[in-house]
Amino acid sequence: MPKITGRAESGFVTRTRTPRPTLAQIAETAGVSISTVSKVLNGRDDVSTDTRVKVDSALRQHRYTRRGVSLSPPAVRAVDLVMSGLDGSWPASVASGLEAAAYEAGVHVVISKTRSGASANNHGAQDWVDRVVERGSAGVVLGLIEPAPDQLTRLRQAQIPIVVIDPLSDPPPDVVSVGTTNWAGAYEATTHLLDRGHRRIALVTGPPHHLYARARTAGYRSAMAAAGIDVEPAMIRYGTYDRASGAEQVRALCELPEPPTALFICSDHMAIGGYEALAAAGLRVPEDVSVVGFDDLPEARWVSPALTTVRQPLKDMGGSALRTLLRLMNGDEPESPRVELATTLVVRDSTAHRD
Amino acid sequence: MPKITGRAESGFVTRTRTPRPTLAQIAETAGVSISTVSKVLNGRDDVSTDTRVKVDSALRQHRYTRRGVSLSPPAVRAVDLVMSGLDGSWPASVASGLEAAAYEAGVHVVISKTRSGASANNHGAQDWVDRVVERGSAGVVLGLIEPAPDQLTRLRQAQIPIVVIDPLSDPPPDVVSVGTTNWAGAYEATTHLLDRGHRRIALVTGPPHHLYARARTAGYRSAMAAAGIDVEPAMIRYGTYDRASGAEQVRALCELPEPPTALFICSDHMAIGGYEALAAAGLRVPEDVSVVGFDDLPEARWVSPALTTVRQPLKDMGGSALRTLLRLMNGDEPESPRVELATTLVVRDSTAHRD
Repeated sequence: MPKITGRAESGFVTRTRTPRPTLAQIAETAGVSISTVSKVLNGRDDVSTDTRVKVDSALRQHRYTRRGVSLSPPAVRAVDLVMSGLDGSWPASVASGLEAAAYEAGVHVVISKTRSGASANNHGAQDWVDRVVERGSAGVVLGLIEPAPDQLTRLRQAQIPIVVIDPLSDPPPDVVSVGTTNWAGAYEATTHLLDRGHRRIALVTGPPHHLYARARTAGYRSAMAAAGIDVEPAMIRYGTYDRASGAEQVRALCELPEPPTALFICSDHMAIGGYEALAAAGLRVPEDVSVVGFDDLPEARWVSPALTTVRQPLKDMGGSALRTLLRLMNGDEPESPRVELATTLVVRDSTAHRD
Repeated sequence: MPKITGRAESGFVTRTRTPRPTLAQIAETAGVSISTVSKVLNGRDDVSTDTRVKVDSALRQHRYTRRGVSLSPPAVRAVDLVMSGLDGSWPASVASGLEAAAYEAGVHVVISKTRSGASANNHGAQDWVDRVVERGSAGVVLGLIEPAPDQLTRLRQAQIPIVVIDPLSDPPPDVVSVGTTNWAGAYEATTHLLDRGHRRIALVTGPPHHLYARARTAGYRSAMAAAGIDVEPAMIRYGTYDRASGAEQVRALCELPEPPTALFICSDHMAIGGYEALAAAGLRVPEDVSVVGFDDLPEARWVSPALTTVRQPLKDMGGSALRTLLRLMNGDEPESPRVELATTLVVRDSTAHRD
């Protein structure tokens, strides 16, 4: 356990530039002896709680900073995980997997979300690139964010490597990405519905300019084509991955002259919205309409009936992104500029055979 | 936008101790001119993608580190958010609120979870205190973790202030905590059930040694006493906040000679487990049994029927913890050694009048 030495040659920097208070000043303020202050600083047991509280208060009052503790010794590397939001199951799963891999590597993880516009108290909106460059991040993992060309340029200038999880569009050839087998997952989900006798299978997918929405749409189309089924344009709807847009698109599908008997909905949240639209239309899941989601967030198990869905290995994606970033930080080439981890179809209670 | 100067007097430290490669070496490896390497480093547009890829690869190969970028200039302060786990809605909400407050203050947030035992690849289990002291954290917020006396001593020695969210037991007088009005929330939940005509109201609470479980139990008892109802010991059950223990305790309550008509279950996850036990016993919510949860995690809205629950302002708790920590980091006294933010009863579809 490190001890206070009071010597200046420790080689570490102190945290503030103001003159460092002496133990005598602390002792005077606290109304105790210098040796008592020293005991508190050294964590000795033979000090009463009352005294410790007094000394701690005096230390704070004098803004005492212990020598020998630098803010960030260069030996500790910190990487950034920057996502479009921190709330909810998706960021939590990715962060959890990434942090576990970082822990194994002895790397610390700084989290933040992207922001636009000035903040409430007018500190101004600091771009995530400003933040990571300012701190001298050892590397960045981006989740569900499209890095702009000038942001990539600034990271390159600062020699900060980057890995993108689930890129929204095709990243430049020099940007490494980690994703999931969106095409294969969608193919499997659609085939699951075909195997249960469904022919009128509608798709609710994400924004058409999103890379992974396009891959899922293509997987659905391929499975339908393999079954010899022509897909009517009206059977493909575009949502924005949230509950409300899922409800809206499924409502529209229910109003078709010949509505679908099965839905492949490309996010669990949109599928939960779909449940609501189906209930409002007096349709039961899975008796009247079968539903398959995408993600396998915890909420897929909470809903009733439990949702059949395509599992994305979000924790593994976080871990894989971090390990890829470590390679880049070490000056090594990535094993592959594109990593796609396998999806799995998790069959629960929302899909049934068509009568 | 910063420029490469190549001058040594920049005042920043470089990231590695190995001799710094020259631009000429990089250019030779990449098979391009020195001015092309310089263009890439300065983010100029007049370089083809192919060339940029080659130069980036050469930079990585030579482990080129740009001068002028320090790993962690002392100006940027980073605080730690250490929680018992990162997965799920509770940590995500707390982290989201804390990060928003940190952003306003220009402070970075390092996240990690606590671990015990050696890790898979034998890096050894590093205590969270080791990690924050090693990096010289500016301050620590702990979530759902009981800091041990020796851990508090080490933080005190390193002059790293700490704030605890939802302390499991009464923290020492010099440790500041942020929580929620557990007693008042439980009182309101129980009163809600009493107001709907219920008299046989059972409680499923957390481990009896947990501070907030004790406060919730006391709130329930106070409301029952105010209604003049004696609580039979069999009507109070202890779970561990997870789904399985909720199911187990509700199963036991269903087997009582005179089972309860209403349940106050002290976590949403336990309440979801309770739903399962009630369904297995052939009891409907809320027709046969009313249920109130605690937390108001997103899953309370996903379940069917949507769960009436006591809302903890988790984001606000994260924000409040960070702002309290900033006061301590600045050497100021906390506004209060205990902050309790208000709970709110959110009435949904799981509670009904007793026939």
